[in-house]
Amino acid sequence: MQELSIVKIGGNVIENPFLLNGFLKSLAKMPGRKLLVHGGGKLASETAGKMGIPVKMHQGRRITCEETLKVVTMVYAGYVNKNITAALQAEGCNAIGMSGADMNIITAEKRRVTTIDYGFAGDITRVNVTQLNLLLEAQVTPVFCAVTHDGNGQLLNTNADTIAAAMAGALSSEWRTRLYYCFEKKGVLKEVSDENSVIPEITPTYFETLKASGIIADGMLPKLHNAFDALKNGVDEVMIGSHEMIENTTVNHTKIFL
Amino acid sequence: MQELSIVKIGGNVIENPFLLNGFLKSLAKMPGRKLLVHGGGKLASETAGKMGIPVKMHQGRRITCEETLKVVTMVYAGYVNKNITAALQAEGCNAIGMSGADMNIITAEKRRVTTIDYGFAGDITRVNVTQLNLLLEAQVTPVFCAVTHDGNGQLLNTNADTIAAAMAGALSSEWRTRLYYCFEKKGVLKEVSDENSVIPEITPTYFETLKASGIIADGMLPKLHNAFDALKNGVDEVMIGSHEMIENTTVNHTKIFL
Repeated sequence: MQELSIVKIGGNVIENPFLLNGFLKSLAKMPGRKLLVHGGGKLASETAGKMGIPVKMHQGRRITCEETLKVVTMVYAGYVNKNITAALQAEGCNAIGMSGADMNIITAEKRRVTTIDYGFAGDITRVNVTQLNLLLEAQVTPVFCAVTHDGNGQLLNTNADTIAAAMAGALSSEWRTRLYYCFEKKGVLKEVSDENSVIPEITPTYFETLKASGIIADGMLPKLHNAFDALKNGVDEVMIGSHEMIENTTVNHTKIFL
Repeated sequence: MQELSIVKIGGNVIENPFLLNGFLKSLAKMPGRKLLVHGGGKLASETAGKMGIPVKMHQGRRITCEETLKVVTMVYAGYVNKNITAALQAEGCNAIGMSGADMNIITAEKRRVTTIDYGFAGDITRVNVTQLNLLLEAQVTPVFCAVTHDGNGQLLNTNADTIAAAMAGALSSEWRTRLYYCFEKKGVLKEVSDENSVIPEITPTYFETLKASGIIADGMLPKLHNAFDALKNGVDEVMIGSHEMIENTTVNHTKIFL
């Protein structure tokens, strides 16, 4: 099996031109086949603000009304996605910016209304490995934003960490997959204020301990759940850290194990 | 040589859900390989207005400052492009939404400043036929918005009619190409107010007559220039009309000849 790297970058990297530039240079240099998934949440909130659309969140998740979906599609699939693609091309990486609707690669279903109506939020139902392989085998680097579709013409806002995990899982049937969650820190930290307190390895048992002691909380919880899900779905390695780890694996980072 | 249809739709079709829906259904049904190029100018102006960005035009062309380029990228490459792609997927057409930066397919250079500074407006320098063929041969339908790049990381706003003509011209070396300019009218009209006054054929000589008499003016002038350029560059047929002509070539439309 050939190797494939699936890299996810978060909004804090995207919004910092210095970090983003460093990340994209590292990604372009990365050998072998690769795929990028990006967020962009804060920029969407900022644009919604300028357009007078209220930002509604519930437990860290965006409630996506019709107007918010429009902003999300404009910012994620338009502004962020195309600027990343153009920057990668300038670095000699043959990128193609995509949403899940393009080549029908990610199908999702609108999240069912329970106590909360998340609006046009999508939960992934299928990743189209055949179509993805067509691009990967041609040495093209797909760059996915956090927008999917339901197959009936409706776009849906979908969590970027989940997209990365689902794609890595689906592709692991045909590739030896490595999943990198890149963000502005060096890894999962034992002390939030201490950049050198990176936890080198996290297993499910240790995760329970870290959760109980409050060291892992908030946005880091779903990221860890996605990481474990990816491993259960056949992904070979999952790592969390700064963009430096994708260029140099000896740089401190957190590795996730089952 | 296999046949390839290059279809361009303008902003007035895109902004009318009824016309757009009819157009996309016709496009999905069209046999053979195809490629779509779309505009979206009015929606960009509307969004710029909501964000408090002034719209500046000179002789019908948009002056693209940095903030305007951001809006253009959001609206064309994000909102319009992804909604069209999702709608085509729902009709069973395997579409992929793209800008010129994606797979490095359209390179342009920033328009030189003469008496007017058009800002981030791009003039096409190269169409990457090899990369386009990769998609066309896989029976994927590329859907291009009016955004290109300079190869150094800079996105550029580029006229959609010109993109369609340049792509059709470049692809005519390997495909038998037909270029369709679709808009809200049945063709080039002799009397603007009479939908039944479609001019069936326009040659360069007749074009001069129509121009001198003021029948062809304003936005129709560059469209005709693009049409003649496409034919000079090897495109087999160029037609101007409503979306009905792409489904049924017996429907009235204007055909351009050299």
